[in-house]
Parts: sequence; C-alpha cells; structure tokens
Amino acid sequence: MASKPSIPKGTRDFGPLETARRNYIFDTVSSVFRTFGYSQIETPAMENLSTLLGKYGDEGDKLLFRILNSGDPFTGTDFESFRGADGTINAPALSKALCDKGLRYDLTVPFARFVVQHQNELSFPFKRYQIQPVWRADRPQKGRYREFYQCDVDAIGSRSQLCELELVQIVDRVFSKMGIRVLLKINNRKVLTGLAEVCGFPDKVVDITVAIDKLDKIGLDAVKEEMLSKGLTGEAVKVLEPVLLLQGTAAEKIAVMRGVLASSETGLKGLDELEELFVFISAAGIQTPVEIDLSLARGLNYYTGAIFEVKALDFQIGSICGGGRYDDLTGIFGLPGMSGVGISFGADRIYDVLLGLDKFPQAGVASTRLLFANMGSKEVAYVLPVAAALREKGVAVEVYPDSVKLKKQFDYADRKAIPFLSICGETEAAEGQIRIKNLETGEERVFSSSDIDTIAAML
Amino acid sequence: MASKPSIPKGTRDFGPLETARRNYIFDTVSSVFRTFGYSQIETPAMENLSTLLGKYGDEGDKLLFRILNSGDPFTGTDFESFRGADGTINAPALSKALCDKGLRYDLTVPFARFVVQHQNELSFPFKRYQIQPVWRADRPQKGRYREFYQCDVDAIGSRSQLCELELVQIVDRVFSKMGIRVLLKINNRKVLTGLAEVCGFPDKVVDITVAIDKLDKIGLDAVKEEMLSKGLTGEAVKVLEPVLLLQGTAAEKIAVMRGVLASSETGLKGLDELEELFVFISAAGIQTPVEIDLSLARGLNYYTGAIFEVKALDFQIGSICGGGRYDDLTGIFGLPGMSGVGISFGADRIYDVLLGLDKFPQAGVASTRLLFANMGSKEVAYVLPVAAALREKGVAVEVYPDSVKLKKQFDYADRKAIPFLSICGETEAAEGQIRIKNLETGEERVFSSSDIDTIAAML
Repeated sequence: MASKPSIPKGTRDFGPLETARRNYIFDTVSSVFRTFGYSQIETPAMENLSTLLGKYGDEGDKLLFRILNSGDPFTGTDFESFRGADGTINAPALSKALCDKGLRYDLTVPFARFVVQHQNELSFPFKRYQIQPVWRADRPQKGRYREFYQCDVDAIGSRSQLCELELVQIVDRVFSKMGIRVLLKINNRKVLTGLAEVCGFPDKVVDITVAIDKLDKIGLDAVKEEMLSKGLTGEAVKVLEPVLLLQGTAAEKIAVMRGVLASSETGLKGLDELEELFVFISAAGIQTPVEIDLSLARGLNYYTGAIFEVKALDFQIGSICGGGRYDDLTGIFGLPGMSGVGISFGADRIYDVLLGLDKFPQAGVASTRLLFANMGSKEVAYVLPVAAALREKGVAVEVYPDSVKLKKQFDYADRKAIPFLSICGETEAAEGQIRIKNLETGEERVFSSSDIDTIAAML
Repeated sequence: MASKPSIPKGTRDFGPLETARRNYIFDTVSSVFRTFGYSQIETPAMENLSTLLGKYGDEGDKLLFRILNSGDPFTGTDFESFRGADGTINAPALSKALCDKGLRYDLTVPFARFVVQHQNELSFPFKRYQIQPVWRADRPQKGRYREFYQCDVDAIGSRSQLCELELVQIVDRVFSKMGIRVLLKINNRKVLTGLAEVCGFPDKVVDITVAIDKLDKIGLDAVKEEMLSKGLTGEAVKVLEPVLLLQGTAAEKIAVMRGVLASSETGLKGLDELEELFVFISAAGIQTPVEIDLSLARGLNYYTGAIFEVKALDFQIGSICGGGRYDDLTGIFGLPGMSGVGISFGADRIYDVLLGLDKFPQAGVASTRLLFANMGSKEVAYVLPVAAALREKGVAVEVYPDSVKLKKQFDYADRKAIPFLSICGETEAAEGQIRIKNLETGEERVFSSSDIDTIAAML
C-alpha cells in the first residue's frame, strides 16, 4: 500500500514544464497544418483486433497491447486445447480467444479504417491531421517508449504532386517557425523500382537501395562489392554506376537518371513525379534545402511514390519527420484505389532537438506572471477583484492561498518562476494601491488598484 | 477482410467538425485554468493495476480495462487452479495473474500517484489541470461511453478556502466565456456530518442527505416519512426540520444552520468554511449565481469539505461540472495529510449543451477561408506564392490539388464551407491579378497578386 508508486516501464509522466513544451510542439504543427486546410480528427485508443492484426507484419502483431475482454472471458475457455505437444501454450491463439480489442499501434491504420467507415460523410481529397498517443509492447530503451505521441498529416483521394508539395511546404513552415534548420530528402519508390528493373534484378529493390545508402560510409568500391555479394552481376553494377556518382541539383540528377532509366516505364514515371514536384517547389518558394536522395529506403514495403525524410542540420539525431505516398492504404478495408500521401512528425525527437539547441520559446511555456502575497483574509479580499480583472485581460495571476510567512510565499514564486510579486497590506488597501515588485530586478512600483490596463501592460 | 470496419462499442470517432468543437471546449477551459496559475500535466494511459485496484470499490475494479501482459503470459499459468468447485474460473484472480497493467479509470488516482511519485520536484500548493481520456468497461448506453475525456483541475497542499474560491471563479469564467448560464450549488460534507450528529444518527449521513434531496419532488411530509422509514426517530426529524425549511441567501441559511448545528464541532467547522468561502465570493465579484444546497450528495465517500455541482440553467441535462475537497487523496500512496480540492468539467455534456443552445462559435471551428481553384499546372504555379504568403499571415488557404472540372472544385469548397474561391487563369497570371469570389454573396473582387495584406484583410 504505502510502497512508492510507479508507472509501467516504457511509459512517462509529463510534468508542467514538459507538458508546456510538448504543447508548444503540438500547437506549432497544428497551426501550420490548419493554414493548409488540414482538419483534425481523433480515433479511439482501442481498436478491434480484427482492424489491427496483420497490418504490421508478424513482429507488429506481437507488439500489440491486447485488452482482456471484460466480465469473465475465462470460464468458457478450454485452456488445454491451446497447449502444444511441447507443453507451451499457443499465445497468439489464446490471446485472440480472450481479447477482442487492442491499443492502436500507429495512426495510419486507424486513419484508413476511419476513411472507409466514414467515406460517405467526408469530402475528398480528405486532408486530415491527427495527434494522439500510440502504444507498442517494444522493449523499452533510451528514446524508445511503449507510449508515445504521433503527429500525422495526410491527404487522401488525389494523385496530384501538389499534395506532396504541401507536405514539403508544411515541413518548411514548421521547422522555420521552430527555428530548427533542417534538410528535406526526397526519393521516389518508382525510381527505385526502375533501377532494379533496368539492371535486370527487379526483385532486389531493397538490396540495391540499402547498398546505395552505404556510399558515404564505405565508398564506391565497397558498395559495388556489396551489390555483387547480394547476387547482382558485374554488368548490373555497371548500369547502376551513374547513380552512385550522381551529383548536382535536382534537375541535373533527374537528367542523368532519365538516361539510366530510359527503358523502365515505372522509373520514368517516378522521374516525372519528382520533376513536377521540384517545379512546384521552386514556384512556391521553399526556404528549406530539399534534395533528391536515392538511398532513402524508408517504408519500402508500402510507399509507392514519393518518400520523405527530414534531418536536423545542427543536432545529431535520427530523422525527425518522414513519410511518403501510398496507393492503396484503404484497400485492406475494402475501399481500393484511394491514393494518399502523408508525413509524421516525431514529437519526442523534435523535443530533444529543441531542447538541445535551446530553441524552446520562454513565452510559450511561461505560466503565472504575478503572485499576490497573502497578508491575511482582509487584505486578500482587497486584492481579489484586482486579480480577477487582470485575468479578464488574459494575464495569469495567482493569489497565495495561505497566510504564511512571506519567505515561504517568495519561495513559491521562485520555484514557479513567477516574475512579479505583489505585497498589499493594510496601508495599500486603505489607499487603494497595488504594490508590485519585479523579482528579477528588485524594482518596486505602486499602481492605483483601478488602473488594471497599466498593470497588465507591465506584466 | 473487406467487411465494413467498425470500432469497439462505447468508443467514438471524432470527425473534423466534432474535433474542432471539442477543441473549443478544451481550449476554453485550459485558457481559464492557466490564468489562475494551474499547470497542465499528462500521465500514461496505462497504470500498474496495483495503482488502480481497490481505489474505486469492487464495482470499479470490475470496470477496469486490463491489458494482457506481452509475450507469452500463459505457458507458466496453471489455469485449473483458478477453477472453483462449481466449474467457474475466479476471473479477478486469473486476470491479475495475466495482466499487470490497466487503462486509467479516472484522472484522480493517477494525479494522486503522480503527486506522491514526484513530490520532491513539485512546489506546493501544487495546482494542476489534466485533460485526457479515461476508460471504463461500463455497459455502453446513450451518453455513457467506454472512452471519454475528463478535464480535471485540482489544487493540492493547502486547506485555504481561497482554493475553493478559485474553483468557483473558474466555473464562473468558463461558462461565461462559453455563453452558458449556470447555477453553482455548494454543500459541505462537514455540515452533513454535523446534521447526522445533532439528530443522534451519526451513521445515517447518506440517508439524511438523500432524503433532503427529494424535498422538491415529494414535499416536506413525504421527506419526513422517508427519514422515519430509514430508522430516524420523530425527535431526530424534528431537529432536522429547520433544515428542510431553509431559505434565503447564503448568509441567512448559514445563520439558521448555526442554531441547528450548535452542538456539533464538525458541523460548525463546516459552516465556518462555507461562510469564509461566501465572503471571498462576494469580494471577488462572481457573476454566476451560487447557492448553498444541503441536498448535494456527490462523492460523499471521499469528499471531506466543500462539494460543488454545476447545472445549466437553459438546458435539461445532469450536472456539467462537479467536485469537492478531499483531505487524504495521497494517503493511499503513502503521503498522508495532503488536503486538496478539485473539480471536473464534463466535456461530453458541455458539448451537448453548447450544441443544444447553439453556442459554439463559428470562428472557433472554422477552417479554410479561401480555395484556389486548380486551372492547370502553370496557373497553379502562379498562385502558389500567393497562397504561401497568405498562410504566412496565418490565413488558412488551400490549392485544389487536381485540375478537374470547376463544378467539382466548387463542390469541395461548398462541402468544406470554404467562404471564398479564387479562379486565376492565364489572363490573371499574365496581369499579376488575383480574382476572388465571395461564395456567399457572389461578389467578385480583383486584387494585385502582391497586395497580400488587402487580400488577408478581406478573408
């Protein structure tokens, strides 16, 4: 009973400062999403397991948190029928018998389910954002949690590259608002497919992409060797060589690639998409550097067009934002042919970057501006209407609840980083004055208690 | 696979309009909480079951959603040892063996756990608010959900009636901001204890309060009869009669009660608290009507002082906000003697009231102001920088992603209730103009594409 309470491993409490900082991130991305016409939706934490199972691979199924059916799910269950010859229980099967619901694992599958379920109420293209926690029964470790927020923004129901452009613009606006310098890398899944096709190994898209990704680390020769070791022929590697030497602007890269991919319809389609996107990017006036990076291998299993990744330039951490285009997200729920594109902002990593670069705005996380010291019931009754009038102006003010030693009240102001303290005793009350001390400079000023505007302006 | 997807019963999806409206409620209460110096915290959705069990009574334990331990929680379990003579499984015991974690049932117990766990990092009195979902395995029915948000605001670590006052002020500000007329009822648990004492039945607090509560419905004589039927003597009922006839202002009611409770120390203490609170209320200048209601029986098991309840005056619905003072919330986690007081805003009911009274602000839930029609790639490239500049000014604008029939683009604007549409073709692009149509009035205006401020002002 009286043992020190704790929370499940991999979960976190967020205190006042952390919550204010996290809200700064959520508010910033939300406000940008909204200026592009994205609307927020929310889905339940619990989804039916039939919605979740099979959507994240076998490994993902194991990482779902399952919710025990309520009431008595046990009495009718023949437990021994789930036991194998070796004495172990078939855990997935028994879990399924005992649990109909699970906690959502990401926001993408619930979004797909939402779109299909509400298709008749939505206007397409449907532009939504969603900021909610997700849960994964991963082994907790530094930077990896069992409960964490995702901030997803997606447009579904259009194949236009203007949707990709909007995501690029959103990335640009979000990080420029936050004062974080970033690099946005773009790839296209169709180009990767094309590369695998033209070198004669259409089933080796992943191997080729992974090998290209190592270029910076291990050098040209080692990458070629790796490709050979993965089963590519010398001729195939030769076809890919211009890609490994690719340099210059997006337009220059695309021009070289047009040569390499000349025989692949899919590859050329990918280049058309990239080209159109870069035309839009230059028309729209993006400040963030955007580059084509053919080694970008994120989400190769489900992305079908553009692939995005954002890295912070001044802080060492993995990607802080990423996404891409998927052509058949809602097909799994019976609504085929809905193409969409989306990105996800990694709130925890962005938090670390803002903290590491000291970019959290003071104003964004500030709380109370003024504490009225408590000098007794009568004196408090005198300041109460002043406090109320200041709050009416939107200023956060507190009245210390207990009439205790001033030292203790000063300490409270100090620990909450409240910048101004008002001490009003009998004299001030008698003369209709409000005395306010700036706790940083020590300066004291006296106001008329009716001069709310002047007091509010100083705070 | 292709069967129509659904969500667990008792849970809800919130689409764009509902989410915007719910955000209006959350933003309004948050902004008021903050002007009183309350800080937001967040706790994990999952708590250890050791934290939750036994805190909500036996009925509450049954309503906890339990999370199956991950991996294989089954193989080492001797299921038959949980089976009783009648063949049924002891569900609570087996659940405990299979589940270490549960979903939070309210925000109060997690708050108590948080305060104890982080006591050394917090400044007391600690004023926090928390807006998060909770889960209960209740039978779903109209207005009762298995997942719903609570908005709790509490001050812990002070016994001052100024804390009660702040909650009264918060109620006043929140509902006046929302334009909802409410009545705030206040009771005090100590007064109820006193009443039971002075009539000689100290163990019948609940029976007495429940009987008083029926006064309006069944009348004086029937209430007296009910008291007798609950085991009170005629003499006891006679002692309580002045309470049943209680009328007038708070001060008048308190004066009468002082006579009735003269012999009860606890009762008089309760009256002192009420009196002090009403002095503060009148000093602070509250607009909401506040009345003493001795029949208020909410939370009699845990409240120890003030009890609050808020009712909408112009809309028939249960209480939309309620709370009270508890003297030993954190004792269950090993930190005794921490008195606190808090209230909880019922977001779902407030939603219904705002909707029923048509008080949701249009502006608060509005989204895109202007849609640029898509007249082709070149024309879009022309409007992109204008759209970007407007967003920079904080205006939500969209560019329709596909170059399709104007009818379809108009429909999109219509369904999203976008008030302005811009159609810029070759001519406008050539002349540096932006043509904007007000979709409500039909009026069309032409601007220079560089005159962003004028366009923004009109939108």
